[in-house]
Amino acid sequence: MNASQEQEAVSPLPLTRASILVAHQAISRLIHRTPIFTASSLSAALPGKNTLFFKAENLQKGGAFKFRGASFSLSRLSPEELEKGPNNSARPKIDAVRAYGASITFCEPNATARATTLASVQAQTGATFIPPYDAVNTILGQGTALLELLEQAPEPLAAVVAPVGGGGLLAGTALAAEGTRVRVFGAEPVGADDCAQGLKEGKRREDVRANTIADGLRTPVGMLNFPIIQEKVEAVITVTDEEIVEAMRLMWERLKLVVEPSGATAFAAVRSKQFQELGIEGPIGVIISGGNIDLSKPLPWVRQE
Amino acid sequence: MNASQEQEAVSPLPLTRASILVAHQAISRLIHRTPIFTASSLSAALPGKNTLFFKAENLQKGGAFKFRGASFSLSRLSPEELEKGPNNSARPKIDAVRAYGASITFCEPNATARATTLASVQAQTGATFIPPYDAVNTILGQGTALLELLEQAPEPLAAVVAPVGGGGLLAGTALAAEGTRVRVFGAEPVGADDCAQGLKEGKRREDVRANTIADGLRTPVGMLNFPIIQEKVEAVITVTDEEIVEAMRLMWERLKLVVEPSGATAFAAVRSKQFQELGIEGPIGVIISGGNIDLSKPLPWVRQE
Repeated sequence: MNASQEQEAVSPLPLTRASILVAHQAISRLIHRTPIFTASSLSAALPGKNTLFFKAENLQKGGAFKFRGASFSLSRLSPEELEKGPNNSARPKIDAVRAYGASITFCEPNATARATTLASVQAQTGATFIPPYDAVNTILGQGTALLELLEQAPEPLAAVVAPVGGGGLLAGTALAAEGTRVRVFGAEPVGADDCAQGLKEGKRREDVRANTIADGLRTPVGMLNFPIIQEKVEAVITVTDEEIVEAMRLMWERLKLVVEPSGATAFAAVRSKQFQELGIEGPIGVIISGGNIDLSKPLPWVRQE
Repeated sequence: MNASQEQEAVSPLPLTRASILVAHQAISRLIHRTPIFTASSLSAALPGKNTLFFKAENLQKGGAFKFRGASFSLSRLSPEELEKGPNNSARPKIDAVRAYGASITFCEPNATARATTLASVQAQTGATFIPPYDAVNTILGQGTALLELLEQAPEPLAAVVAPVGGGGLLAGTALAAEGTRVRVFGAEPVGADDCAQGLKEGKRREDVRANTIADGLRTPVGMLNFPIIQEKVEAVITVTDEEIVEAMRLMWERLKLVVEPSGATAFAAVRSKQFQELGIEGPIGVIISGGNIDLSKPLPWVRQE
């Protein structure tokens, strides 16, 4: 039994829309109810002219939707577990994390070092590991973003598009859309398209090439997440890094929002030929997953002289 | 009688808070009710720890507060005047303006060329000139931003800070604060400090050096605006370009908002020693005036290699 299974064993909830409503109630005072945005010029430029409602999770605490899943996971811990301190793997910007009172343990940026360091922190502190995407509570927490978007949009959505990395956000979104008439789509970079490939092959890929500017989507899709996506997501649309950067620039210019490449991926998918050829009529929800970008580096569309 | 006076003659309203309420009712369906933002890490870093409520006029239509004054000015035109087409000098980004259906006439970027071109457009089309800051309706329209902020903030504000260029926003803000207990401050770049200097000398300066990164604040303060500021604004605080860029970067990083240098000037003033030494207790409103920045250029804090 690994750390993830152990945590889930404490408080299992079924993977359903009803559980996402429970999750939302549990975390609504901890999270920001992020605003939604629309921009007529961005809609007008689409062949389908669909009104777009952007859910701005870049304005979430920690700068990304991950605060939702992490908050819900924390809310399910026992007081004893909480006292020992959870190790939040959501990894928003270090300064922001410190400002929220966390203590941070650094390690080399690879899977082995992460596992070793995590094991050593847990051994020293007895801390509980909060899995970033491949866990029931995480998926339920991420699904709350769509619940809010559906409440906030002034008209019913025809579809929603969310990016897929580990798949917590997309699986949660698909569960939250159950019983509504909202069609659910994923958006994935061509350079990390393990989910789209896995869907094509009918079997989850366990690794990912991860050659993309969208650093938040370099993770292979999780074991729990993949079958949910397989069952409930209509298609995962892949987009090139060039398309992601173009979408990102448009969002900065027109929405005036700081969006990271991963956060622009769903909009890039909406602008793609593949999506537009579906001929969906009606408003489309677009989840901006995050805004954590290193602003000390040149913007990806600014040519270095 | 110049174009500005002519427009005002059509529909004079007194320069009072009550008139700003009228203006708000007139434009509320035309403008965005922009959201307010707060960031605990930005407040925690201030000596006074004041909660800051940022009014995000960078998310206003056209990317700046100027849409308010322009909308109210337009709403006061007769059908005949409207038909001939107004020349909106609010100058948001050209693409955005075109997307709103405007036709744009370009000219050299200096006062003489502007006046000549404007006169020729007016002669050809009979269009009405909407003055960008030095007119009653413009001032009343700009004042609506504070009305909304006061409604949106969950607790009463102790003070509000707005940038001053032409002075329409600051004068409108000061009028909107009348009868409330909100203390009003202006924020001006050291490199375009004609308003602060004029206040010191007791007489409006008619020109401005305009050596600052805050391109929206390079205008000399208007004739109508100056006496309102003189009477109702507690102080105009000047900040260096370095302070503006630092504030701007913090806003991009923590608020995840694209803010132009002028839009960061009020926050720079709040962070200044001069403001902090006032020892104001309670929440402070900060008006983010706009987000129209040329994103094809390097960010001002990114060193060119």
